[in-house]
Amino acid sequence: MGGQRTILTIAGSDSGGGAGIQADLRTFAALGHYGTSAITALTAQNTTGVQGVHGVPPEFLEQQIHSVLDDIDVHAIKTGMLFDSENTRAVVRALKRHYSEHAMPPLVCDPVCVSTSGASLLAPEALKIMVKELFPLTTLITPNKFEAELLLSRTIGSVEDMVSAAHDLLRDGPRAVLLKGGHITATLADVDRVVRARPEICIMGEGMYGDNMRILAINAPQPENLVVDVLCEASGPITIFARPRIDSSSTHGTGCTLSASLACALANSATMSEAVLSATAYTHVGIVTASQIGAGHGPLNHLHSATQLCIPRRTPGNPYPFTQLLINRSAATWKEYVAHEFVRRLGQGTLAPASFVHFIKQDYHYLKYYARVHGLLAAKSSSFPLIESATQTILNILHEINTHRALCAEFGVSQDELERTEEAIETTAYGCYLMDVGVQGDTTKLLMALLACLLGYGEVGLWLKSEAARADGAVVLEGNPYRRWIEDYSGPQYQGAVRVGLDLIEARAAADPSSPARFNEWCAVWDQCARLEKAFWDMGLKVAG
Amino acid sequence: MGGQRTILTIAGSDSGGGAGIQADLRTFAALGHYGTSAITALTAQNTTGVQGVHGVPPEFLEQQIHSVLDDIDVHAIKTGMLFDSENTRAVVRALKRHYSEHAMPPLVCDPVCVSTSGASLLAPEALKIMVKELFPLTTLITPNKFEAELLLSRTIGSVEDMVSAAHDLLRDGPRAVLLKGGHITATLADVDRVVRARPEICIMGEGMYGDNMRILAINAPQPENLVVDVLCEASGPITIFARPRIDSSSTHGTGCTLSASLACALANSATMSEAVLSATAYTHVGIVTASQIGAGHGPLNHLHSATQLCIPRRTPGNPYPFTQLLINRSAATWKEYVAHEFVRRLGQGTLAPASFVHFIKQDYHYLKYYARVHGLLAAKSSSFPLIESATQTILNILHEINTHRALCAEFGVSQDELERTEEAIETTAYGCYLMDVGVQGDTTKLLMALLACLLGYGEVGLWLKSEAARADGAVVLEGNPYRRWIEDYSGPQYQGAVRVGLDLIEARAAADPSSPARFNEWCAVWDQCARLEKAFWDMGLKVAG
Repeated sequence: MGGQRTILTIAGSDSGGGAGIQADLRTFAALGHYGTSAITALTAQNTTGVQGVHGVPPEFLEQQIHSVLDDIDVHAIKTGMLFDSENTRAVVRALKRHYSEHAMPPLVCDPVCVSTSGASLLAPEALKIMVKELFPLTTLITPNKFEAELLLSRTIGSVEDMVSAAHDLLRDGPRAVLLKGGHITATLADVDRVVRARPEICIMGEGMYGDNMRILAINAPQPENLVVDVLCEASGPITIFARPRIDSSSTHGTGCTLSASLACALANSATMSEAVLSATAYTHVGIVTASQIGAGHGPLNHLHSATQLCIPRRTPGNPYPFTQLLINRSAATWKEYVAHEFVRRLGQGTLAPASFVHFIKQDYHYLKYYARVHGLLAAKSSSFPLIESATQTILNILHEINTHRALCAEFGVSQDELERTEEAIETTAYGCYLMDVGVQGDTTKLLMALLACLLGYGEVGLWLKSEAARADGAVVLEGNPYRRWIEDYSGPQYQGAVRVGLDLIEARAAADPSSPARFNEWCAVWDQCARLEKAFWDMGLKVAG
Repeated sequence: MGGQRTILTIAGSDSGGGAGIQADLRTFAALGHYGTSAITALTAQNTTGVQGVHGVPPEFLEQQIHSVLDDIDVHAIKTGMLFDSENTRAVVRALKRHYSEHAMPPLVCDPVCVSTSGASLLAPEALKIMVKELFPLTTLITPNKFEAELLLSRTIGSVEDMVSAAHDLLRDGPRAVLLKGGHITATLADVDRVVRARPEICIMGEGMYGDNMRILAINAPQPENLVVDVLCEASGPITIFARPRIDSSSTHGTGCTLSASLACALANSATMSEAVLSATAYTHVGIVTASQIGAGHGPLNHLHSATQLCIPRRTPGNPYPFTQLLINRSAATWKEYVAHEFVRRLGQGTLAPASFVHFIKQDYHYLKYYARVHGLLAAKSSSFPLIESATQTILNILHEINTHRALCAEFGVSQDELERTEEAIETTAYGCYLMDVGVQGDTTKLLMALLACLLGYGEVGLWLKSEAARADGAVVLEGNPYRRWIEDYSGPQYQGAVRVGLDLIEARAAADPSSPARFNEWCAVWDQCARLEKAFWDMGLKVAG
């Protein structure tokens, strides 16, 4: 697909937004490119028709082109409605001045002179100037049936006529001609007949499957009527692009959209047939997926090729947008977890020792699950750094277990008693849930589950520390039987691990932007873990009650 | 975020594309909305300055607004540069005519009269008309420091000044005022001071974390200098929006982008403070992620909120875009798999019986893995239909095993010999690879691995059938010892399963559009399976050699 390019459109303005520079700029944006524009004429227009036209003076049109090209490096240019002779001449003059010394980027000329309804949009003198002065500069012209008929003074009714017309239009100087067949109904039999007569002609497009794709061809409906476009390149090749004909009233701006998307592809150095294949597909899907806007011929859906990101981009001022969103989405559950009564009492030193002892005994069992699930994470990892990170966490948990044993000893719980303690249902639920997420999903989903615990205890540690630091705070350290626990979770080692965890999921979310469906799955896992954490504190409090 | 809305911008045109209706329309598109426009004036402009201005006659400006509003249902309106008194009056006239009987949608007025560089952009008379006639119609006005100073005839230098200025500007009739602080440097201390004096004021924005987000606050850098915007609503609340001040020259069109994104949010029924929060974040990230375009003050990156889809949308004419892409991406490997010499010889009936026997004996072992991995797929599935589909496939494989046994018997291979056959390394590699993908990833990734086999054999079956049907085809059925195998894989039952598989992965890919990273993973799995399939045929041929 290539990177962002800058493209200039020289065309009319359509207030209704469906055609003209508005369609062009939306196409550029939808395909990820930057658009600039020089307006030839303003129209007061909507989906039912054109209510007014205001021509832009030729010298001001020229000035717009100069302003763009004097400053901005442009990778392709397209022209649409040029309005009149004077403005057509102004465009030629401006382009020739800028590209007198170095090569012009690809120039796509949509020779807008007859509208879809057959109405004339350009004076005959202007057409002559376009043919004589602009066509020789162009990489590609994109006439429709009526325009080609006007240019060649003959009627075009069949695919054979289209092939010879596209070829004959090369005489006016463009390096390629794409003759659009939207107004000619063709069948697969018509295309076959043409290709049998001239086997050098290629066929491409929807429903035209490559080798070894019989399973697709047999399962896709064979359309009765086709739209056929014919590409003829001065360098020789002729290609027919075919796709199913569709009934739609959302066709306003089809020609603008096609030439704009052609300019995008050519700006990214596509070959001519690659460009036509991608642009016709883009335009076709735009028609198929359009929803009705306005009472008449509505615009295409230009935005079908892009999708909104679920998670804002990371910036220096906002390094954790994903975690922030996770916490916001489960705000109530998260609060019940990290601001739990168990934690408050622990901070005040008023928590019943029986509650604390029950909690740390169960935490011992929980940590075994937590270590094992990191083993599963290592097993699911596909690179040495990921395997190492999961393994390092297991070592950290084993280290934590030693401190845990010492803490238990302080409260008179022996190693033997720890091992003998029956696992509570809350512990089983949480531990096995982690294991289940690990079995079901990918490593990112598993990380969501594992980090709800890491980050939540980090939050609890920081709250306890900040309260302890306040003169009127709710936390006392002096004489608090749980001081060691508080200092562990607010200390630099644990908080360092929290930061590593934060960076890990943010980097993961940024490198592999999720769809809404996947993001919702992640949120559900996060929320479930927060619920299970809350239940774990609840369990501790219940024992004292 | 809400669905697609239609928005009208009434503003100037910027040929360079960074500001004016071009920035507005790109913002609308980037946020997924449909834009319409009425142009007040054309500018010939680039990132270094304005080279020319061409005013649009007021009656034609009015005509553009009428064309849009007569036909299209508009959910929000924004105004930008109104150019002069006549055009300002024309806008007021047009809006009043359209909304005389029913309520106007949210109207955001960016009172463009002083540029970032301090230059005057609107005649003093025009400003008076805007204040007197347009402001009373507006939902929100968005002046910068200079504009607010001009409107209030006093200087604004501090956050306190901003709060009182925003409040005082309500006197002119807008339902809310957003005073933009881009030209005032503030610190967190300044904001704290204001909020201590007036505790009813809310603070929001980047680096301003909600409750229970200490882990984010402590790990995010505390910016020294802030940009502060003040929102004052006629209904009472005052909110300060803060974010880190950044050094950037990509700020051309910042005001246009902000008011355009505000209109998008209001069109989707956001509250005023939600709208400001999302619009300031959108605009800020646009500046942070911009790449340099032009030699001067370049445009923002409007497209940061969206991403290109990896897989084209499904349409009636193109129901299998994902599978087509998968096959195209691994075209060479896929061809070596489905058009393998083993298959050709089998079709001709010239394949050595020893080759075929070796192949079906190993296939027996392979099918055991294939069934077991579907068990794993069932274990990883999260809904009854998915569990059922995986289980049904196991039953189909068990059925296939029976036919397989019969086929083996035809070639003199007993059930006992089948079981005793040593597993070949190619079989182990393929079977265990499927199992590994199942352990490592999610169900979609596993489906990629499972379907390469299902669809590839489907393709082989169709090729054999189509060749057999041709008079000059390479396949003979009559007297072919492998006829039964050919008829099985080209038959309706197997081909029906192929179609179900195709629909399953296409639906999955459409419901959960993948990031490029994830798509590449899928392609790698697909390609690896095609390689293992090729190795499986190779193994068969080798035996005869």
